[in-house]
Amino acid sequence: MAPSKAPDSSRRSDRSRRAIHDAALALIAEAGYGRTTIEGIAARAGVGKQTIYRWWPSKAAVLLEAFTDLAERAAEAAGEPRGLPDTGDLAADLKRVLRATVDELNDPVFEGPTRALTAEGIVDPELGAQFAEKLLAPQVQLYVTRLRAAQEAGQLRADIDPRVAVELLIAPLTHRWLLRTLPLTHAYADSVVDHALCGLLADR
Amino acid sequence: MAPSKAPDSSRRSDRSRRAIHDAALALIAEAGYGRTTIEGIAARAGVGKQTIYRWWPSKAAVLLEAFTDLAERAAEAAGEPRGLPDTGDLAADLKRVLRATVDELNDPVFEGPTRALTAEGIVDPELGAQFAEKLLAPQVQLYVTRLRAAQEAGQLRADIDPRVAVELLIAPLTHRWLLRTLPLTHAYADSVVDHALCGLLADR
Repeated sequence: MAPSKAPDSSRRSDRSRRAIHDAALALIAEAGYGRTTIEGIAARAGVGKQTIYRWWPSKAAVLLEAFTDLAERAAEAAGEPRGLPDTGDLAADLKRVLRATVDELNDPVFEGPTRALTAEGIVDPELGAQFAEKLLAPQVQLYVTRLRAAQEAGQLRADIDPRVAVELLIAPLTHRWLLRTLPLTHAYADSVVDHALCGLLADR
Repeated sequence: MAPSKAPDSSRRSDRSRRAIHDAALALIAEAGYGRTTIEGIAARAGVGKQTIYRWWPSKAAVLLEAFTDLAERAAEAAGEPRGLPDTGDLAADLKRVLRATVDELNDPVFEGPTRALTAEGIVDPELGAQFAEKLLAPQVQLYVTRLRAAQEAGQLRADIDPRVAVELLIAPLTHRWLLRTLPLTHAYADSVVDHALCGLLADR
């Protein structure tokens, strides 16, 4: 009885898909979004460009999937659980996650492609909207879930909006990194958490 | 007695300089940073390209000066005083300034060129560093001065770092605008101020 060919074919597909993701991320980091083409990705991945056209409708779609895959692989490699940690110590949990974000943003494997895709989303409304919906929104939702749990446990004030609170935590890191105002460090991540949790006012 | 030619010549210079600024801002918004050239700016401004080369060392230098000039003209038009308002009511003062920032970021006159220059600074470290030093740092300093005054008046906690506090206030607006996560509104600006001042914790 001849074995089915499906497993081999599926493994070949996975290898090709991974090669295409890696090629897309490398090219956008080196050449920028505008000069990255389906043809260039295909050549670098060692596949025919029809393979890419068969699986994805556009260059943007290839790149967004490559970024999602990269983030998932990084989370697996780090042994991170799905969702934010919840040890009951909110400040410690947030510092752990934001320090990991600092490491990721400072890692050349992420930095080049992430800067290139973010920059293009800033000037291209359609790509920016996809980037926000497919890559940012799911990450923001993990924070909202964790903050809402802390709010229900009475640790956070009842009148805060978790969606706004998330931005107080993550936007300062993104701002400092994207706009290159000051170095992005673990100490800064810790400081942002402390300032956001305790607030600025002497009396409130 | 023939009048000196200096005043006329100076007025001509000012007119040319303004025309060059306007041309540079319009071009970068339409074509992006990469496709904006000194030749293109000169043609649109109706000056010879040697005029531009005589006054500025690079395309980046023209654009950075054009942005500084645009921000100064906007502040003058709005009758804004130099520095942040200080009525003694910190929350009201911050909301007033951040609402004005929302209006500016949503104004097409600013939005196109600001997105184009910001995007380029994200992928070009040298331009990004100049952008941070010449355009962002002076704005951040105005906030630091206002927050330090409030700290000295005992309104803000003694242990906060005004430089970090500024980022809690301005980064969420920049993040939402640049990354197109949700609409940028006055209500959001107010909410950011309230969350940052009062903090997230139920007890602290």
